[in-house]
Amino acid sequence: MSTATGKLCIQLINPNTSLGMTEVMAATARQVAAPGTEIWAVCPEEGAPSIEGHFDEAIAAIGVLQQVKAGRAAGVDGHIIACFGDPGLLAARELAQAPVIGIAEAAMHMATLLATRFSIVTTLPRTLTIARHLLHQYGFERHCAALHAIDLPVLALDDGSGLAQQKVREQCIAAKKSDGSGAIVLGCGGMADLAQELTLELGIPVIDGVSAAVKMVESLAALRLSTSKHGDLDYPIEKPLSGRFAGLNLGGGNV
Amino acid sequence: MSTATGKLCIQLINPNTSLGMTEVMAATARQVAAPGTEIWAVCPEEGAPSIEGHFDEAIAAIGVLQQVKAGRAAGVDGHIIACFGDPGLLAARELAQAPVIGIAEAAMHMATLLATRFSIVTTLPRTLTIARHLLHQYGFERHCAALHAIDLPVLALDDGSGLAQQKVREQCIAAKKSDGSGAIVLGCGGMADLAQELTLELGIPVIDGVSAAVKMVESLAALRLSTSKHGDLDYPIEKPLSGRFAGLNLGGGNV
Amino acid sequence: MSTATGKLCIQLINPNTSLGMTEVMAATARQVAAPGTEIWAVCPEEGAPSIEGHFDEAIAAIGVLQQVKAGRAAGVDGHIIACFGDPGLLAARELAQAPVIGIAEAAMHMATLLATRFSIVTTLPRTLTIARHLLHQYGFERHCAALHAIDLPVLALDDGSGLAQQKVREQCIAAKKSDGSGAIVLGCGGMADLAQELTLELGIPVIDGVSAAVKMVESLAALRLSTSKHGDLDYPIEKPLSGRFAGLNLGGGNV
Amino acid sequence: MSTATGKLCIQLINPNTSLGMTEVMAATARQVAAPGTEIWAVCPEEGAPSIEGHFDEAIAAIGVLQQVKAGRAAGVDGHIIACFGDPGLLAARELAQAPVIGIAEAAMHMATLLATRFSIVTTLPRTLTIARHLLHQYGFERHCAALHAIDLPVLALDDGSGLAQQKVREQCIAAKKSDGSGAIVLGCGGMADLAQELTLELGIPVIDGVSAAVKMVESLAALRLSTSKHGDLDYPIEKPLSGRFAGLNLGGGNV
Amino acid sequence: MSTATGKLCIQLINPNTSLGMTEVMAATARQVAAPGTEIWAVCPEEGAPSIEGHFDEAIAAIGVLQQVKAGRAAGVDGHIIACFGDPGLLAARELAQAPVIGIAEAAMHMATLLATRFSIVTTLPRTLTIARHLLHQYGFERHCAALHAIDLPVLALDDGSGLAQQKVREQCIAAKKSDGSGAIVLGCGGMADLAQELTLELGIPVIDGVSAAVKMVESLAALRLSTSKHGDLDYPIEKPLSGRFAGLNLGGGNV
Amino acid sequence: MSTATGKLCIQLINPNTSLGMTEVMAATARQVAAPGTEIWAVCPEEGAPSIEGHFDEAIAAIGVLQQVKAGRAAGVDGHIIACFGDPGLLAARELAQAPVIGIAEAAMHMATLLATRFSIVTTLPRTLTIARHLLHQYGFERHCAALHAIDLPVLALDDGSGLAQQKVREQCIAAKKSDGSGAIVLGCGGMADLAQELTLELGIPVIDGVSAAVKMVESLAALRLSTSKHGDLDYPIEKPLSGRFAGLNLGGGNV
Repeated sequence: MSTATGKLCIQLINPNTSLGMTEVMAATARQVAAPGTEIWAVCPEEGAPSIEGHFDEAIAAIGVLQQVKAGRAAGVDGHIIACFGDPGLLAARELAQAPVIGIAEAAMHMATLLATRFSIVTTLPRTLTIARHLLHQYGFERHCAALHAIDLPVLALDDGSGLAQQKVREQCIAAKKSDGSGAIVLGCGGMADLAQELTLELGIPVIDGVSAAVKMVESLAALRLSTSKHGDLDYPIEKPLSGRFAGLNLGGGNV
Repeated sequence: MSTATGKLCIQLINPNTSLGMTEVMAATARQVAAPGTEIWAVCPEEGAPSIEGHFDEAIAAIGVLQQVKAGRAAGVDGHIIACFGDPGLLAARELAQAPVIGIAEAAMHMATLLATRFSIVTTLPRTLTIARHLLHQYGFERHCAALHAIDLPVLALDDGSGLAQQKVREQCIAAKKSDGSGAIVLGCGGMADLAQELTLELGIPVIDGVSAAVKMVESLAALRLSTSKHGDLDYPIEKPLSGRFAGLNLGGGNV
Repeated sequence: MSTATGKLCIQLINPNTSLGMTEVMAATARQVAAPGTEIWAVCPEEGAPSIEGHFDEAIAAIGVLQQVKAGRAAGVDGHIIACFGDPGLLAARELAQAPVIGIAEAAMHMATLLATRFSIVTTLPRTLTIARHLLHQYGFERHCAALHAIDLPVLALDDGSGLAQQKVREQCIAAKKSDGSGAIVLGCGGMADLAQELTLELGIPVIDGVSAAVKMVESLAALRLSTSKHGDLDYPIEKPLSGRFAGLNLGGGNV
Repeated sequence: MSTATGKLCIQLINPNTSLGMTEVMAATARQVAAPGTEIWAVCPEEGAPSIEGHFDEAIAAIGVLQQVKAGRAAGVDGHIIACFGDPGLLAARELAQAPVIGIAEAAMHMATLLATRFSIVTTLPRTLTIARHLLHQYGFERHCAALHAIDLPVLALDDGSGLAQQKVREQCIAAKKSDGSGAIVLGCGGMADLAQELTLELGIPVIDGVSAAVKMVESLAALRLSTSKHGDLDYPIEKPLSGRFAGLNLGGGNV
Repeated sequence: MSTATGKLCIQLINPNTSLGMTEVMAATARQVAAPGTEIWAVCPEEGAPSIEGHFDEAIAAIGVLQQVKAGRAAGVDGHIIACFGDPGLLAARELAQAPVIGIAEAAMHMATLLATRFSIVTTLPRTLTIARHLLHQYGFERHCAALHAIDLPVLALDDGSGLAQQKVREQCIAAKKSDGSGAIVLGCGGMADLAQELTLELGIPVIDGVSAAVKMVESLAALRLSTSKHGDLDYPIEKPLSGRFAGLNLGGGNV
Repeated sequence: MSTATGKLCIQLINPNTSLGMTEVMAATARQVAAPGTEIWAVCPEEGAPSIEGHFDEAIAAIGVLQQVKAGRAAGVDGHIIACFGDPGLLAARELAQAPVIGIAEAAMHMATLLATRFSIVTTLPRTLTIARHLLHQYGFERHCAALHAIDLPVLALDDGSGLAQQKVREQCIAAKKSDGSGAIVLGCGGMADLAQELTLELGIPVIDGVSAAVKMVESLAALRLSTSKHGDLDYPIEKPLSGRFAGLNLGGGNV
């Protein structure tokens, strides 16, 4: 770890294989990072180009774990899982020594600090179930007033047309009006670059999880707090992983 | 599908790579299967030899999906995920045409039909968190009076010594006395062969999820009910999966 | 019990006194029953012709108990309470040696195995409260996206006009569109014969509790699991019941 | 109704057939009743001598309804269901024009007005499930710190030995010490006469539901508020009840 | 205390400084009070003229405590906090010897005794969050079907124009139609005088918390039950309060 | 605001009047603050010397609001309410332009990022009710495995004897052993200086809310996110506050 030098390295893991989205998120992360913080943006070499359901998430989780293993070997100070479903979050926490934060988790936590109720705006309707499960897992089901989907796939955010961005904007405006919510959570890492301008335009906090997660990792690092290794988040019990999972083997000394 | 012939094929997927456990579970499944039901017991060629945490579960989910894909290609009438954490359940439901049942799900559902409260007896304490999350996801947190762990790894059930089996028995007896529960759910596929004799010895239902899941799949097949393809469990959106996940690609026409 | 011969006898108890509805439900039950299963359809000689509220349910519960007592004397392998409010369910479980399944319970359980959220379509609006209470008791309040009533009495399903059936169909179609649910639960035993064709027409699981309950009883019988007699579901404490309840006295030997 | 004369008539319905318990409860009710209030204590002529489970409750509900019908015909100003399981509560509310209060309901409500958490002390362990369901139905599951049973049958409170009373006292003292509760709810109508002296001895509110219910009915009557007849508590839909239930028929003009 | 004489003194505390509202509420309270009950209506000399948010509530709580201290010194038999947010309720219970009832609490409790679901009609939308928190604290979140705001400030009820009253009436009528609720809770002490006529006009219970609280205090006094002094509601630990809070110092003997 | 210069000013509000505790907390805050962050530690001039119940909290809330008003006038970038009950949190958010964070809130949020379940160790048992309410309000009731009290008053932490510190340490060790929790939340601002050494000694995260809140405010400031002014957290409606509350008047132009 690099705390001696005051330097901090955060591994920003895009769980899908889209380099474009990785770049958008990295840029946003760097904008909000503290001066001494380095953002190491990665995405899996193998996997799915976008994550839009339970199946995609299961695949993405492996890519996340592979990256967390690499990040741990490199001694990073924290890991961010930059997909709104937070795929592989608890598994990654087992594997990691440093803190691991999901962007849905980060955005939802931040929203509850700023408003008594928030709304979520995401991409495809089929991902709403995943968001509902996360609200429940994190304890925020009563803090979420409503969930909305723009009904466009994730990669529409990356097609250069601006159409998806326009739909997000419209949906945010409609949600502010209809839901009685004080804040909006953007439900996709690919919307990271929209948060600041929508916050200004709408006059309420519009929260992007990538930025939020960067600050959470920095916070935990500054507090010298890391993932608990007592109980279910202790390092995985070492056992021989075979075949395509051999790369996830932990090696001697349980690390 | 084979309903024309009255034959039914259930794919019993052990998510870990242990052939011993696969056999124990297959034997139990065959004991309770209806005359016309064939149990096709499989386990992933690659993965983890036992599943004892979030990390192991993430790996196991891929093996489950690979098998579900194969099972669907073979036209099976249902899939069982035979690990008490139900790894990859919703992802598998997306991928599958037929019903998919997890053994934790099956055992918990059955328990609520027989008693107003049940206890769970499982292997390692670190897996209790997973069981608690499932209770919550399925809606049974109020039906579960207590969770207990024998504090032995999963494979101790397969070491021939009988020690783990003895501990399970003792824990079940203690739980009946202390928890005020009317039934006990066995929290590991490797305990499948213990349910019937413990039910007799304790005089209360002691429920194994493998057997329970077999009957649930048979039930759904008889009712000609299958996984909903409307909403979040619709087939995965087709997209090119790369590298070690290429084997999960769905092929033309989305099945 | 008749398991030696491979024969199984399920007592299908219509809690109201309508012979027409008893027949509709018996026919549906026989359609899905396994080859060796006999459906013994009964309804109380005394009681209410239909059940549409808390008051009707209280009356129906007595009829259910009288039938369960008779069924137990006859050695049936399971009992079904075939009214969507599951009247007298826990009382019947106390009295019974064999499993007892309610049709609301059965349908709701099945729905959660096929979809992450379901809708309910029932008869009169005043029965929605009963359905809500059951969702809560069974743990499925978060799995139910919405409840709908066609605003026709139960016996309209039995008047031969087809009007009620048409309204059910329209309501199911509307619910699929509006609720984001992957499955629909039919909220009345009198709708049992509609499930299969609506499943085909709508392309999502439309679930009838009578059929579902038949398979659940068969499942429990095959697993040799029965109602727990440890705790609150133990046989009723024997005490002299007087007057019109004398027929419910248990007789010597507490059975 | 008798409000013109300032007189109020409350029907105190003991759902079991024990005249002894009816008298104990009537005496307690009269002690706390306002000057103008008459307590009309009744119990069913037919039914169970004590209520100690779901089965007994189903039987008791019919006796309660018969009495509510009689009470309504007599123009009483309110009905109390004086058994801690509140058997038939919602059914009675449908049937009644005046308010209907259960003693578990009354005691639990009062307890939450006096302490942030309360404990329950009841008779047999098997009735704890019923109490838990009521806590849930009324919304007080988070307000109840613990439930305790003295493990003696209801009628032990009526055997003149004082043993059950002594056990209740000991259990209340133990509960105050162990649970961190500020109040205790007595979980049986037969304990009604113990509340005042235990309140003095323990120095915390020990609440009897019979007394509490008397004051609640008086309160609602004074406010001219009665059971809502809009929605699920509207009068039962009139239909011919047959056999032993004919006595519950409502007569022309819906009463 | 004045129970020897049969006299009862209830301190009705309007937490805001509006004398007009204090009078409206006092008049309503006196209408429903029992013959021997005296209503001592007070409001703080210092504070906010109306309470329409979290900030106003914090200020109001001090006024409430000052009045409770005075009421306790005067030996009143109970205190009512007559603002729908129940500001300072638990703090007041610590300070008081007699029972303390909030009007939101009173109205919500009463509503659940009369209907399985109720609606709330209040003033400004921003107070809905407070009502939601109370529903949760008291356990009634599942009993409340919907919350509505007329979007007028509290003091509009006191401006003599009748406009706010007309809006309340319209909103109640709309809520009865749309929510499927059997009762309506009026969400402001300033609506106290509307309950009786709306109950008659709408044909469902429309509940005012001021009246409800009067009867609750009378009930507790008659039962000789008072706020528990065991646990978190015990008298405040004595410590020197300084500055503008010196008036809240408890004096010797912890009272 | 001072973001142009890269400087950040956080107002650390100790809601009690103890200068000793203010200093302990300020020192801890400064230790974790980022280089450019200034900690402005204040406590009310008037109020209670320690906060150990609902009554103390109500008084403390006014002190908090007075300080928030001053802080807002001074243009601080965020406010921390440094008492584990988070007194006046939502009221402060209404009043503030900048973010407001409570230390219980901060510690609980952080704990859920590091462990699936945490325990709380606090001072007096009577404050446990407050902690339970906060767990519920924030959504973390399922994440908290157990709550413990050392049964010493808050100021024992400030008496120089080290006895309270020793008890905290012992309770933390016991909690780690008994609760199956992965992290511990320290339940009093006066324990702020213990977190780091206990984290090292116990080998699990032991979390102090003061430090956690500092990082949360820094995070929100960096993200340019502030308390929502849409809905219930909008600035208080301006109205003349009288007497001792005149100092809280907002002045023209609503600040």
